[in-house]
Amino acid sequence: MGQAFQDYLQKNRENHLQQLVELLQIPSISALSEHKDDVRHAASWLANELQRIGIENVAVMETKGHPVVYGDWLHAEGKPTVLVYGHYDVQPVDPLNLWDTPPFEPTIKDEKIYARGSSDDKGQVFMHIKAIEALFQTNGSLPVNVKFIFEGEEEVGSPNLPLFIEENHDLLKADLLVISDTGMMDKGKPTICYGLRGLTGLQIDIQGANSDLHSGAYGGGVQNPAHALIEVLASFHDKHGKILVDGFYENVRAITDEEKKAFADLHTDEEAIRKELGVPELFGEEGFTFNERTWVRPTLEINGVYSGFQGEGIKTVLPNKATAKITCRLVPDQDPEEIYEKLVKHIENNKPKGVNVTITPFDKGAPFITPLDHPAIQVAGKAYEKVYGVPVSYTRSGGSIPIVATFHELLNTPVVLMGFALPNENVHAPNEHFHLENFDKGMLTLCHYWLDLANSL
Amino acid sequence: MGQAFQDYLQKNRENHLQQLVELLQIPSISALSEHKDDVRHAASWLANELQRIGIENVAVMETKGHPVVYGDWLHAEGKPTVLVYGHYDVQPVDPLNLWDTPPFEPTIKDEKIYARGSSDDKGQVFMHIKAIEALFQTNGSLPVNVKFIFEGEEEVGSPNLPLFIEENHDLLKADLLVISDTGMMDKGKPTICYGLRGLTGLQIDIQGANSDLHSGAYGGGVQNPAHALIEVLASFHDKHGKILVDGFYENVRAITDEEKKAFADLHTDEEAIRKELGVPELFGEEGFTFNERTWVRPTLEINGVYSGFQGEGIKTVLPNKATAKITCRLVPDQDPEEIYEKLVKHIENNKPKGVNVTITPFDKGAPFITPLDHPAIQVAGKAYEKVYGVPVSYTRSGGSIPIVATFHELLNTPVVLMGFALPNENVHAPNEHFHLENFDKGMLTLCHYWLDLANSL
Repeated sequence: MGQAFQDYLQKNRENHLQQLVELLQIPSISALSEHKDDVRHAASWLANELQRIGIENVAVMETKGHPVVYGDWLHAEGKPTVLVYGHYDVQPVDPLNLWDTPPFEPTIKDEKIYARGSSDDKGQVFMHIKAIEALFQTNGSLPVNVKFIFEGEEEVGSPNLPLFIEENHDLLKADLLVISDTGMMDKGKPTICYGLRGLTGLQIDIQGANSDLHSGAYGGGVQNPAHALIEVLASFHDKHGKILVDGFYENVRAITDEEKKAFADLHTDEEAIRKELGVPELFGEEGFTFNERTWVRPTLEINGVYSGFQGEGIKTVLPNKATAKITCRLVPDQDPEEIYEKLVKHIENNKPKGVNVTITPFDKGAPFITPLDHPAIQVAGKAYEKVYGVPVSYTRSGGSIPIVATFHELLNTPVVLMGFALPNENVHAPNEHFHLENFDKGMLTLCHYWLDLANSL
Repeated sequence: MGQAFQDYLQKNRENHLQQLVELLQIPSISALSEHKDDVRHAASWLANELQRIGIENVAVMETKGHPVVYGDWLHAEGKPTVLVYGHYDVQPVDPLNLWDTPPFEPTIKDEKIYARGSSDDKGQVFMHIKAIEALFQTNGSLPVNVKFIFEGEEEVGSPNLPLFIEENHDLLKADLLVISDTGMMDKGKPTICYGLRGLTGLQIDIQGANSDLHSGAYGGGVQNPAHALIEVLASFHDKHGKILVDGFYENVRAITDEEKKAFADLHTDEEAIRKELGVPELFGEEGFTFNERTWVRPTLEINGVYSGFQGEGIKTVLPNKATAKITCRLVPDQDPEEIYEKLVKHIENNKPKGVNVTITPFDKGAPFITPLDHPAIQVAGKAYEKVYGVPVSYTRSGGSIPIVATFHELLNTPVVLMGFALPNENVHAPNEHFHLENFDKGMLTLCHYWLDLANSL
């Protein structure tokens, strides 16, 4: 049967590419109101296509902004249900003159397809549809239950997605969420990112006298808010980069031996990173590698700090205000709200004398992980390996993807990030393109994944 | 004889006030090039007047900017030589509409004379001339040798004074410098400020990566320049405000019992200061009063600090630069150059990892003190007391007066700040005025001072 869907995809390649061109021709730029109808056109196109291949309950569902395309097929009794997320809106195309071929006139050159949205994310959405079509056509049914949710507002920050998920909680319920909106580490290096860091943060405002003071007349007799702020900020870390907030590391999930091995297998060149950044040395918590420091360890980072005079030269002022903006990157199983409260408590315990301190919270986001040994991750890895013929790279990421946190928090479903983009495909830039090698291999990987998943979850 | 000069001044009061009005009518605004001739006119006016009363070697001496008026009388053989400094240039007068009477049409109202320069500093310069005139007229000679130096660029920062002093070192040589360009603590409270703090400072620039970084992708793996800067800055003080730079306090002259008593006699209301500043509590080195902290103790003050994002809300950036501007107020006998070197050494000893640190020096100024028990100070105090009938207040100041540092450094002469302005005389503002009570009493004080000084230095 593996052979059958492969033959099908091969035989229909030209036809499929022609359909992809059609989808990419629609200028569905979500940020620009003059393209509102184009965004809706792309939604209908996908809805029609889902319906045509055999997906049921297909609907273009309204939100306060651009619509969500939904569809499902739920006849694989006793088998897992997979929710597939992607987005059909694209980034603006300015500056147009830097494009070698027009952004909405898809052009195939050197086994790459050039068009806005080819890599991010219409190309990957389309692959999901064609993989399912191949299974339907060669098998008459699907090995797992499938639900599709294709969003039209990802490029503008998904403002209406959280409410949509909340309101359609039961409709979207699944055993697994697969997101194809990320990438591979490198050409020929299939990658599964199974964890992201979360976020919490706050602003500290320190107020001294009711106006800036003369540093001669008052210096030494009044607390300097900059000194007070530095006293607080200095209390957050030791000299080795360890965070000193009480209980900060309490719920940090330890890295497993399996993860340690997976990261070592990446052969990350730390000296190359150092050179690229132009720093005299890398720096971080002792006993951890660069990958471990940025993926599995939490941070407390000053994103901004300011007080007093910033012009050229000298001004002998004793400032009356000082501000710092701080965010923490969180890892499983830290809770953003709990960490925020610990930060506040720490500041209160280290409150300097002679000034008033105000704390303002920032938005929070939960960290996410689908454990490396979770069957959904392992089966995905094996699917990649069957197609690409090389071991898959397992990574985590130091950043956050808001939609992942949103889904994870609202649906509480394991997530697999199964992305087929390559790092240099000019996503969000002129001459965006997508490698057809990953178009072909990606669809095969998806077919294998659905088939293998049927008996593994 | 004391009676004689008093009678002379009283008898000629109307005439003297008429002359003062004449001087104040000259719009000698040094900052505005259209008043260049007016500045020179004021210089000639003073030169003529000095010559008329009996001062010798009078000259309007050129500089690269506005001229200096010089004159001397050096026939008090065996007696001390006093150099008297003042300035005849004035501040601009904008906004004109806030003046109740035109700034250059001097108006006497309620025993105050309203005009630009009446308090700062033409009024005080004029008093010096009239006091000398009174002694000449009633005695035929002076009890001490006198040299006058009246500057025309004080309000623009005395750019040419240091070179002038250096080039005329011998001409200006004296046993004592009297500066009348400051004030009294309050009406009826004659004040002698006998010490000022000096200054040294530097800028610390910390450079991390070659561009700002994503705090998710790199946070925890690269030194944050803001963290590095805070580590350095936090190392400068302990929690009680004590400066931790090695050897910083080494040459600090201890406060004497006499000084302690003089400061206690001021009955400074610290709670009133706290309230006026609006701070929850005053803060400074333990074991010292507010006056002691700001007058006799050195400081290390952050005047400015900045790194990263300063806009509203959150930006998850790992900044690549951080800067701090630091100045130290110095007290006798700290040496600005020596302290600068100690600061540099301290920074080098506390150099954080993973970043590059650059240090840039700021301008330096020496601290100044004429010891409280110096005869020039004590005799001045007694002269005040004879005229005002109340004990004089002895203070030091936390600030610096650049010309004092300049004179002190270049001539190495004891300095007495004998100022007659009151705190609320709108110096540098609309409706500047000068209290005639201090005009009258000030001239008497000066006469007493010269007479008493003859046998005291």
